Amino acid sequence: MSAAATRTTGQDHLWSVDEHLEDILATVRPLEPIELQLLDAQGCVLVEDVTVPVSLPPFDNSSMDGYAVRVADVAGASEEFPAVLTVIGDVAAGSAGLLQVGPGQAARIMTGAPLPPGAETVVPVEWTDGGMGGGPVSGMQARSLSPEGASGQVRVHRPAEVRAHVRAKGSDVRAGDLALAAGTVLGPPQIALLAAIGRGTVRVRPRPRVVVLSTGSELVQPDTELAGGQIYDSNSFALTAAARDAGAIAYRVGAVADDADTLRSTIEDQLVRADLMVTTGGVSVGAYDVVKEALSSVGDEDEAGGGVDFRKLAMQPGKPQGFGSIGPDHTPLLALPGNPVSSYVSFELFVRPAIRTLMGLEDVHRPRVRAVLETDKALTSPVGRRQFLRGKYADGTVTPVGGAGSHLIAALAQADALIVVPEDDTSVEPGTEVETILLT
Amino acid sequence: MSAAATRTTGQDHLWSVDEHLEDILATVRPLEPIELQLLDAQGCVLVEDVTVPVSLPPFDNSSMDGYAVRVADVAGASEEFPAVLTVIGDVAAGSAGLLQVGPGQAARIMTGAPLPPGAETVVPVEWTDGGMGGGPVSGMQARSLSPEGASGQVRVHRPAEVRAHVRAKGSDVRAGDLALAAGTVLGPPQIALLAAIGRGTVRVRPRPRVVVLSTGSELVQPDTELAGGQIYDSNSFALTAAARDAGAIAYRVGAVADDADTLRSTIEDQLVRADLMVTTGGVSVGAYDVVKEALSSVGDEDEAGGGVDFRKLAMQPGKPQGFGSIGPDHTPLLALPGNPVSSYVSFELFVRPAIRTLMGLEDVHRPRVRAVLETDKALTSPVGRRQFLRGKYADGTVTPVGGAGSHLIAALAQADALIVVPEDDTSVEPGTEVETILLT
Repeated sequence: MSAAATRTTGQDHLWSVDEHLEDILATVRPLEPIELQLLDAQGCVLVEDVTVPVSLPPFDNSSMDGYAVRVADVAGASEEFPAVLTVIGDVAAGSAGLLQVGPGQAARIMTGAPLPPGAETVVPVEWTDGGMGGGPVSGMQARSLSPEGASGQVRVHRPAEVRAHVRAKGSDVRAGDLALAAGTVLGPPQIALLAAIGRGTVRVRPRPRVVVLSTGSELVQPDTELAGGQIYDSNSFALTAAARDAGAIAYRVGAVADDADTLRSTIEDQLVRADLMVTTGGVSVGAYDVVKEALSSVGDEDEAGGGVDFRKLAMQPGKPQGFGSIGPDHTPLLALPGNPVSSYVSFELFVRPAIRTLMGLEDVHRPRVRAVLETDKALTSPVGRRQFLRGKYADGTVTPVGGAGSHLIAALAQADALIVVPEDDTSVEPGTEVETILLT
Repeated sequence: MSAAATRTTGQDHLWSVDEHLEDILATVRPLEPIELQLLDAQGCVLVEDVTVPVSLPPFDNSSMDGYAVRVADVAGASEEFPAVLTVIGDVAAGSAGLLQVGPGQAARIMTGAPLPPGAETVVPVEWTDGGMGGGPVSGMQARSLSPEGASGQVRVHRPAEVRAHVRAKGSDVRAGDLALAAGTVLGPPQIALLAAIGRGTVRVRPRPRVVVLSTGSELVQPDTELAGGQIYDSNSFALTAAARDAGAIAYRVGAVADDADTLRSTIEDQLVRADLMVTTGGVSVGAYDVVKEALSSVGDEDEAGGGVDFRKLAMQPGKPQGFGSIGPDHTPLLALPGNPVSSYVSFELFVRPAIRTLMGLEDVHRPRVRAVLETDKALTSPVGRRQFLRGKYADGTVTPVGGAGSHLIAALAQADALIVVPEDDTSVEPGTEVETILLT
């Protein structure tokens, strides 16, 4: 067995960050749409143009609690010389509105109730004596005090113009209008509109199901005792949380030991619930890096696009990366390096855009800004590699936190930004403007 | 029965938006902390200072796949004159590290594996012949090809300084350090750190459980046929989605008819799962506004702070509002007006800050910016009321969408901002700088 046995084609080619990302985004396709209940579709992307089936409001209705009357009957009315009208009953919200308002008549009407035929305008209850025979009132008596509804007479103290306090049928949206265009992300106001026009379900791209799997025989679960050589598994927790944050439904599988057979069968088991698989660890050049080994025999190698390709990227942290698709459904898989900071930065740069692409979102990337580097001494960066340093951003400046080490997880927890040092820059002076990725 | 029967104390006092909000924030208290599994605590506020129980890394370990050696043994090594060392075996990640590296010896070591005693530095595998007897290799043979581990000899082509490619014990965090301070919001990087130091559970304020209940006999559920005078219930959907967006666990109860007994028993039923109740509709001056009526007899009136107070606010939309606490646990309740835009604006201004206060967050409000008003003609606003118009914000300008009507739900779905017109302004000219609340 020669040393060549450990070499793969093109292994010495360093992929740029952009090439790797392009490869991912060119491969990952938005998920097939499904019909979801309105509240289950929150945060999802609409795939259909939704038109309005029925005008809103569906009928002329009152915008006030008051009396529905004819304009002529209240012309010239004042507190001193009120218009005295016969109250023919109540029109409540939700009533079918069978009352007919004739000359000299008034129907007591509630906000949202249909304007009864014959009525031309609404006078608010505050402009009347409320049928009490005294001065102006501030509201109506509760129905429980007079369940039979209003009767008798009402004194109206002010005139009203035609269709005052009336919301016209179709004044919000008209039947046939475009309510929401395909591509709209459904937030609370969009869900409000869909419900208002009677849509109980809607066709959207679902949230992707992401399975997160860390590998490494050194990993043990939190809340257990560490033996010699062991550390706690943090990647599976961090990336599950990050996947949820990106909009996915994420399943944390936890740490799998460095054994190719175990890993292969675990991945095959998980495929059934994965729209995207993410692994950490086992992608470098070590003898125990079983992710490479295991993934070479998962899925159908004969089919185009099958299999996972392992690469070296011109970046720090995060040099070793794997990407491809596995299993009968060509489920995309991203194999990230195992160091906590490497895997987290890789997630932000590659997995998050993949998740958001699966969701059909147009805006798949974190926002980037130019910020002034605030630091005591120049940052150093290896030539030929794009460096992503953890930083804290505030008001146009960014301050590095912690060092460049890919194991510095404490500093990561203080960061809210990544400082990007381009491939050609080996040193960045304080006060320089740097590209900054905002993580929150 | 006189008209005075419908009056409540101080009813003519117009509350300002700020007074109402202050009353809410002075009453609502952060929820009692509970111990949660790490991933269930995502987005929650930590209530304890978490200190590091064990240094990270817990032991000196290799940052590369390579060979653990003594510095003197590789001094002056080159490809032409390699240092030839006896390979005594493998140190894998997770191994307890029983090998002892003596003079002239090397242990093959994997990334993350503990530096074995006797070894002073690590040479990457790429600086060696990988034990193959040829030129430099690019990686190790997979373990499955030689399960017994490394043996024989390795040729090292470059010297290494002391502790090169070694991550020192405690170089990330040291036992006793403060990992995270109380008050920290737990995002993915903070969850990473907690897992890394072995914390499987954590003490946080839980997400509040919010019950959303719309009222109105005119309301029917989406996907059913509208009869005369009926409209679709949209508020319960919109506010449930908005509550989830704010961080809550939200339960949508849907529309309750305008009947005080039904409403009262529904609310009493729901109290058991509510940290906060939100109702819409039934808070104005109409005879069928049963929320007021029903809530006056829920809870213990004799206890201080019990009961719900109904008010008029100097705002548009959203004039009628109720706030108080009900039931044996003094569960806070916000009663919002029923018009969809009114209830949504009220949610943003009052309910969202209440939810975030329950969570213990410091930052309870939406961001506000000054933006230049972009519009054809001046905006008009009623004197003495703070107006909140729907707008679209982009690059420092804000454009009104739709009109001022509180039923204009279609325009709301196009908006991503609220334009604030102060109480004293009755007209705002195009080009004026206006206060703008960003909704996303």
